[in-house]
Amino acid sequence: MAEQRSWTENDFLSCCGSSRFARAMMAASPFSDLQHAIQLARNIWFNEIDVNGWLEAFADHPPIGATSKPISQWSKEEQSTAVATSTDSTMQELIEWNARYKEKFGFVFLICASGRSTPEILSELKKRYSNRLIIELEIAAQEEMKITELRLARLFESKASTAPSLTTL
Amino acid sequence: MAEQRSWTENDFLSCCGSSRFARAMMAASPFSDLQHAIQLARNIWFNEIDVNGWLEAFADHPPIGATSKPISQWSKEEQSTAVATSTDSTMQELIEWNARYKEKFGFVFLICASGRSTPEILSELKKRYSNRLIIELEIAAQEEMKITELRLARLFESKASTAPSLTTL
Repeated sequence: MAEQRSWTENDFLSCCGSSRFARAMMAASPFSDLQHAIQLARNIWFNEIDVNGWLEAFADHPPIGATSKPISQWSKEEQSTAVATSTDSTMQELIEWNARYKEKFGFVFLICASGRSTPEILSELKKRYSNRLIIELEIAAQEEMKITELRLARLFESKASTAPSLTTL
Repeated sequence: MAEQRSWTENDFLSCCGSSRFARAMMAASPFSDLQHAIQLARNIWFNEIDVNGWLEAFADHPPIGATSKPISQWSKEEQSTAVATSTDSTMQELIEWNARYKEKFGFVFLICASGRSTPEILSELKKRYSNRLIIELEIAAQEEMKITELRLARLFESKASTAPSLTTL
């Protein structure tokens, strides 16, 4: 079992903004490896979080294209392809459709943006806008989990690179 | 087209406790008949209400077996079979499982209780408790609509009985 630096609730909150999720992951740690952590995270997210925890996590994401409030470095990097491929007019359209989506469903449009261009994201947003609420809740929960898995992987990398080296005899 | 007394937002709030639902029904009224009203209500509820509106409506129901806060006459009548068939111990068990359900999912256990006995309701609650959150949100939304339809029917009856008679020449 690889040595892991100790975990904090803030580590897990940086992966998924539900405090119930973070507490449950703390209680479940340490993990034998990343796959073990992801397996536990999926079970907690889909089976142990109440509806308020889901909404708390969704609310923790900046809308794609948001410029008005501070955005975490991870969100910035996840959205870097979108930002690089956007023009002023597509970005403006994305901001408008985001607002329309939030007005209809009551939470921010969630998509695992890593590697996706702005036109791709905009097209997905327009398609998903016509869905029923229950369908969007399901998709948003799935996308949240994809984002959480990517962030857990980064967390493991950063823990590994700062962990003390093992002494072998 | 049958004459209908004018509608108020409170009429619709007494059928479904989401203020967005009540406003949308007001905007859609008057209705050609009950079936027309139900058709509009279903579309509004499933396609036009955001997640906060769903939770607002769910929160408007007393937990089955609740005795601590005032319960509307309609809720009382809808739960009358359950109350008549309950014993102290089944009612106690129902109250405990309701609390457990709310702790897991973040909203009250919703079931269209009309004509259902306490053992039936308790058995449904235990079965549904093991569901995933997204499944329970879908079932709760369906049950909410069943309750709303029954209440719309009662509202139409009460409007009809107080409407001025039509003068025929």
